[in-house]
Amino acid sequence: MAPANNPAVRQRRPRLRDASLLEAPSILASQIRGIQHPRTLTWLACIPVALFGLGLFNLSAHAAQLPELTPGFLINNLWLLIASILVIFMNAGFAMVEAGLCRQKNAVNILAKNLIVFALAASAYWIIGYSLMYGEPVLKGWLFFGKGGPLGLFFDPAVTAEMVKQGALVPSVDFLFQVAFAGTAATIVSGLVAERIKFGEFVVFSLVLVGFVYPIAGSWKWNANGWLNQLGFIDFAGSTLVHSVGAWAGIVGAIILGPRIGKFVEGKAQAIPGHNLAIATLGCLILWIGWYGFNPGSVLAMNETVPYVAVTTTLGAAGGGIAATICSQIISGKPDLSMTINGILAGLVGITAGCDAYSMPAAWVVGFVGGLLVVFSVAIIDRLGIDDPVGAWSVHGTGGIWGTLAVGLFNQEKGLLLGNGFGQLGIQLIGALAYGLFAVAAAWLTWGLLSAFSGGLRVSEPEELEGLDIGEHGMEAYPDFNTVSG
Amino acid sequence: MAPANNPAVRQRRPRLRDASLLEAPSILASQIRGIQHPRTLTWLACIPVALFGLGLFNLSAHAAQLPELTPGFLINNLWLLIASILVIFMNAGFAMVEAGLCRQKNAVNILAKNLIVFALAASAYWIIGYSLMYGEPVLKGWLFFGKGGPLGLFFDPAVTAEMVKQGALVPSVDFLFQVAFAGTAATIVSGLVAERIKFGEFVVFSLVLVGFVYPIAGSWKWNANGWLNQLGFIDFAGSTLVHSVGAWAGIVGAIILGPRIGKFVEGKAQAIPGHNLAIATLGCLILWIGWYGFNPGSVLAMNETVPYVAVTTTLGAAGGGIAATICSQIISGKPDLSMTINGILAGLVGITAGCDAYSMPAAWVVGFVGGLLVVFSVAIIDRLGIDDPVGAWSVHGTGGIWGTLAVGLFNQEKGLLLGNGFGQLGIQLIGALAYGLFAVAAAWLTWGLLSAFSGGLRVSEPEELEGLDIGEHGMEAYPDFNTVSG
Amino acid sequence: MAPANNPAVRQRRPRLRDASLLEAPSILASQIRGIQHPRTLTWLACIPVALFGLGLFNLSAHAAQLPELTPGFLINNLWLLIASILVIFMNAGFAMVEAGLCRQKNAVNILAKNLIVFALAASAYWIIGYSLMYGEPVLKGWLFFGKGGPLGLFFDPAVTAEMVKQGALVPSVDFLFQVAFAGTAATIVSGLVAERIKFGEFVVFSLVLVGFVYPIAGSWKWNANGWLNQLGFIDFAGSTLVHSVGAWAGIVGAIILGPRIGKFVEGKAQAIPGHNLAIATLGCLILWIGWYGFNPGSVLAMNETVPYVAVTTTLGAAGGGIAATICSQIISGKPDLSMTINGILAGLVGITAGCDAYSMPAAWVVGFVGGLLVVFSVAIIDRLGIDDPVGAWSVHGTGGIWGTLAVGLFNQEKGLLLGNGFGQLGIQLIGALAYGLFAVAAAWLTWGLLSAFSGGLRVSEPEELEGLDIGEHGMEAYPDFNTVSG
Repeated sequence: MAPANNPAVRQRRPRLRDASLLEAPSILASQIRGIQHPRTLTWLACIPVALFGLGLFNLSAHAAQLPELTPGFLINNLWLLIASILVIFMNAGFAMVEAGLCRQKNAVNILAKNLIVFALAASAYWIIGYSLMYGEPVLKGWLFFGKGGPLGLFFDPAVTAEMVKQGALVPSVDFLFQVAFAGTAATIVSGLVAERIKFGEFVVFSLVLVGFVYPIAGSWKWNANGWLNQLGFIDFAGSTLVHSVGAWAGIVGAIILGPRIGKFVEGKAQAIPGHNLAIATLGCLILWIGWYGFNPGSVLAMNETVPYVAVTTTLGAAGGGIAATICSQIISGKPDLSMTINGILAGLVGITAGCDAYSMPAAWVVGFVGGLLVVFSVAIIDRLGIDDPVGAWSVHGTGGIWGTLAVGLFNQEKGLLLGNGFGQLGIQLIGALAYGLFAVAAAWLTWGLLSAFSGGLRVSEPEELEGLDIGEHGMEAYPDFNTVSG
Repeated sequence: MAPANNPAVRQRRPRLRDASLLEAPSILASQIRGIQHPRTLTWLACIPVALFGLGLFNLSAHAAQLPELTPGFLINNLWLLIASILVIFMNAGFAMVEAGLCRQKNAVNILAKNLIVFALAASAYWIIGYSLMYGEPVLKGWLFFGKGGPLGLFFDPAVTAEMVKQGALVPSVDFLFQVAFAGTAATIVSGLVAERIKFGEFVVFSLVLVGFVYPIAGSWKWNANGWLNQLGFIDFAGSTLVHSVGAWAGIVGAIILGPRIGKFVEGKAQAIPGHNLAIATLGCLILWIGWYGFNPGSVLAMNETVPYVAVTTTLGAAGGGIAATICSQIISGKPDLSMTINGILAGLVGITAGCDAYSMPAAWVVGFVGGLLVVFSVAIIDRLGIDDPVGAWSVHGTGGIWGTLAVGLFNQEKGLLLGNGFGQLGIQLIGALAYGLFAVAAAWLTWGLLSAFSGGLRVSEPEELEGLDIGEHGMEAYPDFNTVSG
Repeated sequence: MAPANNPAVRQRRPRLRDASLLEAPSILASQIRGIQHPRTLTWLACIPVALFGLGLFNLSAHAAQLPELTPGFLINNLWLLIASILVIFMNAGFAMVEAGLCRQKNAVNILAKNLIVFALAASAYWIIGYSLMYGEPVLKGWLFFGKGGPLGLFFDPAVTAEMVKQGALVPSVDFLFQVAFAGTAATIVSGLVAERIKFGEFVVFSLVLVGFVYPIAGSWKWNANGWLNQLGFIDFAGSTLVHSVGAWAGIVGAIILGPRIGKFVEGKAQAIPGHNLAIATLGCLILWIGWYGFNPGSVLAMNETVPYVAVTTTLGAAGGGIAATICSQIISGKPDLSMTINGILAGLVGITAGCDAYSMPAAWVVGFVGGLLVVFSVAIIDRLGIDDPVGAWSVHGTGGIWGTLAVGLFNQEKGLLLGNGFGQLGIQLIGALAYGLFAVAAAWLTWGLLSAFSGGLRVSEPEELEGLDIGEHGMEAYPDFNTVSG
């Protein structure tokens, strides 16, 4: 079966461009009549967004009369804006890595998920997530709610004289930086459930993750009143809060979905190579660049620590890439490019939790260990019969947990290996476990409800065999090329 | 016909690398003898550039003795430099979106156009466009000329003590930011005339557009003395000035050229799918990133508004992407990735004119409507028998006009929906119409003259069928792959 | 032979993902027994890195008590951080250009080299290169050593009150900017030796280049005590120090390796087209963007010169792209996209040495000449029987030498064409020659030793014919596509 050459495939594509304008309304009407269909229903989740939007034209407060803007105020806000842009650029990196490491027949689906997911994340985090994560406490110390007024919806972007005097971040840039992080958590899920999940179900899960699960989890540490923050848990830029939360949510999805057809033959994992390593490599380098927003930006101001964090981040990535390359060379006899990619990413995830407080050699070592772990983690996940198409668990889950624990070992002031006892390591372990438990529980509940309401998360077997691009999107990523069936 | 496999095709490629150095002069001589050939002639338009360059070594003034650089001066100029770089990065985004949404056989041509066009734009806008747009008035209020001295050619980059004291932008960074915008207008044209225009004719049109048409149009609003500026027309970052001007210029080209062979069969539009949705998606995300320079940079200084504009821009993109995806889901039953791409872009174009003065919910709604309109616009353009291969009109034309009118509806201080009457909306309508009329007239004249002088804008039918990559460039984009004829 | 379709090829891929965790230790053990094999040995060069890392946890000094951070200090360090990120982004540009301009069957190999090389460069330059280049003099005026303490290994990132008061760059950001440059030199080599070198041998050469050759050469000019600096040699941002050093090192490798099979038939150079011009074009635009860090960042502070350098850089790129396009149009009758790409890059390399002190017209002309030279250089290299698969010599070597000499012609204060005599031109010539001699000698020694120890730098003939992706990495870049044998 060669989809690109099959005229039947070409004919049945329902292409929007073909729809004449005059036909559109009647198509619309017939669709609305068919709205009880669960696939269409999932899309309706977006409607409240529109309604709130229409009702709230005047939310944006006029700027108060401000004193002269101080250099510190301007520099801090400029740096965080740039850092936000770099983190948002990571969406391109994730799209290219995930698409490149999957098969050609599912490329449109993965690209579409990664493209729409930031649009969804931005909307959901703006409407509910941000206030949930950083608002006033409702359940003291556990659940937060209320930033932006009594309803806690949207947020108040007004800049006050106090902010200017203190050189504080304005609400807009703080939101932008945080929403970029929220989007990252959702893109990680995308990799774990790739090549078999229905598009609509992924969309709804992303909305729930970014609107509720991630903000509640995040508030435990990054809201000053959070219980893990008060316990002394350290996660500087989100090895656990962003990466392992996304990975836990995703691996639950991967387990519920089951492996792709052909992944396990007689219980033995089969290699299913990615279809485009050029874009996967590009994606890895874009993510590396984006991490210079992720980690140094998490200083949340411009000061002398910011470039130091950029250096530890660089050394972590370098160590991770070298470790995974050497490791794949030793085990398989040849350096595996996809392992180099995942090793760099695991090094980056690993360094993230403690990047502000490692020595440079420790940073390199933390990355190096992350790169080693990713290789073994891929083998373990295969052995456990779980299908993680792009290695997202190994990068973000294993890498994230390692990064969280590494703080307990290498932190300059509290690390075990610097003679400070097991105290911090224990706290890190508690934090890693608490996030794992919460994310798994919340994800299982969400995936389960979604599955129950929509008649299953997984596409049909014929659709999976043919590829989700035709089944879910009615189009191909590379229609002008002869492709190999698989 | 499978070009990549056809040995004849491979043989007749005139490859520069094959030309030995010793043969080059004689080839050159024979080419010069053949210079009456219109295709070669078009290239000669570049020669004045070289001549001016050689004659003006000393134009760059030595910096005056400057007072100590103030933080405000440094921060403003740093921010605008970064914003310029982000906007210039949009060239990569346009190249990937346009190439990805066209066919494989024309990929080299589209890539070549998008790559050379910024080099041409930078040269033309430097030599003439910038002074035309921002110089002293010649025809009071309508046509401007003269920045950089009596001739008005090039510009004076000297930094004065006054600029430092006021924290003003230096001429260099102002030029860089403006030239990046000028380049954008030209790349939009590229999409509308794709897959059938001769390379040389596109090159000359771009030079005229960036050197004359765009700067004259731009001066109406962005030169402080411009008539539309004095009328109260609002276009903060260029929904009309950049995007719809480029789209009007391009659609005239598309109409003159006529549709691609096979686009309309018995009057009905046929879907001609893009050849590489991976790079198209990447391009969309690069453009999204670049827009953080385009819109927040248009504040032309660093202050508390800049990150707010970044937020409204984000929400506009999110709204647009969600709208187009839902709309394509409803109409065709499946979410169309190319619609998500164009929806995000239309959301971004739509938000551009008023991004500094919308509430956040209004920003999301403006983007959402832009995303809806792009879907219907594509259908209308098809119905009208116009062939817009990548949807550039629907994104930049429809989106740009919508964005301009949206200011009259949603602007916090002057919008109709905020209880301010029809005044601003009327002015916005006048502006949108004036730009449309001027751009259409100028483009029709330019395309017409070009066509008359060069024996037609369009490649021959056999060349179009074979693909412009072979015909115009003698090379293929993906020679190692088996491609499907089309 | 069509690798992608050959089931035998698919079967014998040794994929790490297939290796079960339980088998890994025994594979490891058998590998360690086989460690006398020269291919494995080369990897061991990385082990000292790990050892040093483990032994030096406490190197990172605690920050001294700092005075309040001044705006100048913050702005300078913020700008250099951003510039560093832009230069590091160039790794993505090089990866895409080089991979795109090579054949599909070697794509994984080129991507892997470009991905791992920055990880290696960051490690090697951190451990030894940086202190060698910028440390205290050991051999007065020629060889430097010692930054970061008596051993000179790693570097001391401590920020002092003195740095804050002077608005100086902190050591972290200085290192980050310098290491990004060091990585660039190594990626240039990658292009020249592409499609035939063994992976491990390239890795070791890169370590030597970044750890020793580049830093020693760099210290001559960029260490204040360097002999070429004291002689008055000008190389503002590295036309010679980075680009031509990398190109000289690479061309020695290309000569020693010999041409690819099929490149010369009866002494005549054959065109071997690149496999993916979409990513090559993307790479060119990413490099253009990255150059806004490379050149303006080399001001090493934020001031009014920075945006001016961004403008001269833009004009250089524009001139180079236009020249190469016109030139290829004249010689071969059609504009060659790969020439436009290389012309833009040559314009950028050319402008690099003097970008701070040219008039704008001179900047355009320097770029234009660079773009012309690249076309003729490609023809000369072919005529000389040297195989430079992606034109890296012509871009970085020819372009770099031209850029260095252009300073002697066009520099506003010292250039010959501005009436200043031959003095500076002579110094530039001395510098260009000295760097060429040193780089050739060092590279010849290194490649020679490597070849002697590892049984040859070049892969076997069957491996080269089949492609290095299978031979060196056991995987393909595009396994889902039907590819053309070649």
